[in-house]
Amino acid sequence: MTSKNPTAAILIIGDEILSGRTRDANMYHLAGELTRAGIDLKEARVVSDDRAAIVEAVRALSAKYTHVFTSGGIGPTHDDITADCIAEAFGRTIDVRDDAKALLSAHYEGRGVEFNEARMRMARIPEGAVLIENPVSIAPGFSVENVHVMAGVPNIFSAMVAGLLPTLTGGKPLLSQTYRINRPESAVAQPLGTLAEKYPALSMGSYPFVQNGAYGTNIVIRGQDGALVEAAMMELAKLFPADEQG
Amino acid sequence: MTSKNPTAAILIIGDEILSGRTRDANMYHLAGELTRAGIDLKEARVVSDDRAAIVEAVRALSAKYTHVFTSGGIGPTHDDITADCIAEAFGRTIDVRDDAKALLSAHYEGRGVEFNEARMRMARIPEGAVLIENPVSIAPGFSVENVHVMAGVPNIFSAMVAGLLPTLTGGKPLLSQTYRINRPESAVAQPLGTLAEKYPALSMGSYPFVQNGAYGTNIVIRGQDGALVEAAMMELAKLFPADEQG
Repeated sequence: MTSKNPTAAILIIGDEILSGRTRDANMYHLAGELTRAGIDLKEARVVSDDRAAIVEAVRALSAKYTHVFTSGGIGPTHDDITADCIAEAFGRTIDVRDDAKALLSAHYEGRGVEFNEARMRMARIPEGAVLIENPVSIAPGFSVENVHVMAGVPNIFSAMVAGLLPTLTGGKPLLSQTYRINRPESAVAQPLGTLAEKYPALSMGSYPFVQNGAYGTNIVIRGQDGALVEAAMMELAKLFPADEQG
Repeated sequence: MTSKNPTAAILIIGDEILSGRTRDANMYHLAGELTRAGIDLKEARVVSDDRAAIVEAVRALSAKYTHVFTSGGIGPTHDDITADCIAEAFGRTIDVRDDAKALLSAHYEGRGVEFNEARMRMARIPEGAVLIENPVSIAPGFSVENVHVMAGVPNIFSAMVAGLLPTLTGGKPLLSQTYRINRPESAVAQPLGTLAEKYPALSMGSYPFVQNGAYGTNIVIRGQDGALVEAAMMELAKLFPADEQG
């Protein structure tokens, strides 16, 4: 399937994902949001809290895709090194920024909490970045060039994505239709392959399942042209009529 | 934290993950299994069902880590191209292999199901590979050099991992202890940073949570030396005694 949509990658930063302690939720969330926005998520990477690994991944993904979204490593602790790595990746300086500091200062003052040195870390922003709003816990994310840096905590990540996405140029949304066939994938594969060849502008995926001990397959047809998706779906339904499925 | 354990990456192949249709489960499962086996998962990547993307990722990860585990793209349909990509990445030929064909043939015969051309695709194995047993649906995975190729369906992936892992050389398992502190992460960050500096052989992660409207932080201390983990944990407990926590 070819598409002229903007492309994207997500870079998830955190030892806790790679050790199996935490199951990542942000990739799945962002994937759905980008599909709806007409941005094609092309790659995802997870790396550990390691300076060299983060800098290398940021540079590689930033050069390859229209947008890079990062998740994790912008909190107050010593292992939160994402902001410094982004600055290094783009050869920019990094320091406490007045507007970010003012946001945090007002937030902590309002709660009667000390604005200590660790919390001040969260106001360190690379030179020339644009802040991303954090309506949950105030400490902002930021964008540098095509890299959008967000928190790893899922509800904060989602809130930042919701604010950021409308500001990015979306392409045509990807439409999809699903057809359920009560036969095993291997019985569907040959006719589906022939159909896929006939519609090179569409993507056809087959997803096997087992339900009540019986094999079945969901076919998902995706594309930007709704009429074309519809036409292919009609042909598929003819090949596997619902009432003839054993 | 430094470690002399073998290293690993997981490469997840599939449009359905990147489109947000399916939430990946295999990374999380493998991460936990590798930690228990003493193999350090260093990186995860998700790429689409695209030949160039798969070949490039296989080569990059294979050169960088002791082991690479792949998930997805070895079924019977036209978009199952992982086996061909592995062959291409290592410059090997690929063809239907007699032992794999015999396994599948016996399986389908036993169920009275036709062993058709699409199903035969699953017996195509790169030259010189070692088969990985599939106790769930028979079609085998395989290892080529340091790359272990497995199915994407989670229960099949898990079953293949269970058979494969004992055959790989594990290092010392990573031990971890968790300590719960009923204070926000930003109140814990400074003392934790000092403690982390004192124990360079350990990894200390902090994971904020909110429970019943109150902020708290779980601290996880990980390392290969159990006595060292214990010593650091005792110091942490002294810094934040359970009965003094607000």
